[in-house]
Amino acid sequence: MSEHVTIAVDAMGGDNAPSVVLAGCELALAQDPDLDIILCGPADVVEPFAAAHERCEAAVATQVIGMGEHPAEAVRKKKDSSIAVACRLVKEGRAQGFYSAGSTGACLAAATLIMGRIKGISRPALATVIPSPIRPVLMCDVGANADCKPQYLVQFAQMASVYAKNLLGMENPRVALLNIGSEETKGSQLAQECHQMLKEQIPNFAGNAEGGDVMAANFDVFVCDGFTGNVCLKTIEGTAKQIFKAIKGIMTQSLVTKLGAATLMGGFKDLKDSIDPDKFGGAPLLGVKGACIIGHGSSSDEGILNGVAISARVVRSGLIQEIADWALAQKAAEESHE
Amino acid sequence: MSEHVTIAVDAMGGDNAPSVVLAGCELALAQDPDLDIILCGPADVVEPFAAAHERCEAAVATQVIGMGEHPAEAVRKKKDSSIAVACRLVKEGRAQGFYSAGSTGACLAAATLIMGRIKGISRPALATVIPSPIRPVLMCDVGANADCKPQYLVQFAQMASVYAKNLLGMENPRVALLNIGSEETKGSQLAQECHQMLKEQIPNFAGNAEGGDVMAANFDVFVCDGFTGNVCLKTIEGTAKQIFKAIKGIMTQSLVTKLGAATLMGGFKDLKDSIDPDKFGGAPLLGVKGACIIGHGSSSDEGILNGVAISARVVRSGLIQEIADWALAQKAAEESHE
Repeated sequence: MSEHVTIAVDAMGGDNAPSVVLAGCELALAQDPDLDIILCGPADVVEPFAAAHERCEAAVATQVIGMGEHPAEAVRKKKDSSIAVACRLVKEGRAQGFYSAGSTGACLAAATLIMGRIKGISRPALATVIPSPIRPVLMCDVGANADCKPQYLVQFAQMASVYAKNLLGMENPRVALLNIGSEETKGSQLAQECHQMLKEQIPNFAGNAEGGDVMAANFDVFVCDGFTGNVCLKTIEGTAKQIFKAIKGIMTQSLVTKLGAATLMGGFKDLKDSIDPDKFGGAPLLGVKGACIIGHGSSSDEGILNGVAISARVVRSGLIQEIADWALAQKAAEESHE
Repeated sequence: MSEHVTIAVDAMGGDNAPSVVLAGCELALAQDPDLDIILCGPADVVEPFAAAHERCEAAVATQVIGMGEHPAEAVRKKKDSSIAVACRLVKEGRAQGFYSAGSTGACLAAATLIMGRIKGISRPALATVIPSPIRPVLMCDVGANADCKPQYLVQFAQMASVYAKNLLGMENPRVALLNIGSEETKGSQLAQECHQMLKEQIPNFAGNAEGGDVMAANFDVFVCDGFTGNVCLKTIEGTAKQIFKAIKGIMTQSLVTKLGAATLMGGFKDLKDSIDPDKFGGAPLLGVKGACIIGHGSSSDEGILNGVAISARVVRSGLIQEIADWALAQKAAEESHE
């Protein structure tokens, strides 16, 4: 039997909310008998669902933050949005985790403001599993912090390592700094300073990586500022998309190519599955006081299921406490150093 | 008849130098009757070739800069390297352009130090054509300047626009700032400041782009700092490589898949050709006083031919003068503004 966990779910997050979110929650409840969900959203959405499902409670939110709204502003103004209500449930200890497939920016802002930072962590960071045909790797930060100080990246490295170990089963993850050359003197001033600090403070730091090392899975964890990470992530997604589009064009050119392509469909399906982001349920925001998983806006019901399930796994893994312990020890070491 | 042009070529640049370089020069001389080449390298390499070819002169260089050497240091120490000798020929006016498939860092350093910056240009920048299945686009900077001030990117935008217009036939190129969101308030402090300056100073500025817009060819020219550009470029190359590797694995799984794959080979060859970097001959270093093209280390003889030919086209296009005129006008405008 697993530890009992309660996850606050934003019923209104995602392109196909609320129907896909409700379907995903139903799957998650069926899969995990030790899971409770508090579903946050308009009364007419969350109350009937809660009434119809054991282990699901409704938390009424009268507002919704749209995908196009300015994240920080929307969080400030809409105190009763489904995202804010869900984060407050974690803050108040009624839930241990928060899941949403809504606006990434709004989730980041709400989780940081409402749930709060872990003591000693300067900036919470967004990590994401990057699915590669070889094996999945983890990248952090992919967009929470466009401007970074070197010390932030040391914290990203540690937090992402703990996630990789606890959630991705990587026993001793090899951490690399995303840079523009393998030598330690390469890169921007930030990258050069980071390299030195990572070498001193992160035992499993393995050196610099370049853009090509990500999909080649030459390391387990890639750390970078959120600007670089976001560009890299979207470049990977965009490149894969354009190549698959071009290949589809080739395969459907004529009857002959269609027949030829038919022989490859099994392999192509496996390849597409191997790089399907839905499988990983979403991106964890690391460094906040509670589990926080932000799903793709395009998540299917299975994506929602996986996101809620991973939120529960984050809680059960003890990851939050492990990050808090490290941050505390790090802070103490810095202070004794001063 | 074209304008007569002399290009100084580094005979020792590239993984397969000098044989591939000599073969490429032979092709370039045959293709362009108004081209002269000054071939720079060891006497036993360049003298026999020059003796055997009309319109080719030898310039003996007693040193070679290896791919593994520290670029700036190697350029400083090896005053008689083939790269330095070639750059001096441009400086002295004996050649109008420099081409090498050698160490990118050493070429950048030598061209900047020896050929010199165009007056008013703060930092020369490396541009590169990114081949996409849709159409080629231009990115600048891809690695010459890891740390940038906003004003640099305005210059990159203008220089890259002039290159796109003169060399890639884009009449009125749409310039985008590589960023992490489409709204102008998005991104790092650098990106936000750049956005404002680009809007004010670059008439063909079209707004922010994200990583996925590059391969989708949603804009013609992408400007960014050299750190971001280098990560983006290598991520594209690495992602394409891993996907093609995975597809090759699928196609060669069994006799049936091999037969099926055979029907698609024509289309795949076209796709691979469309994203073959050799076709574009190399990356132009923009902002130095003379044409400067840096080829891929892995360039074939055809890659070398294209690189030398593009160097000549840069000279004939009047691009250097056009950049110099703009920089002068820009400087005057700034001074009158102060």
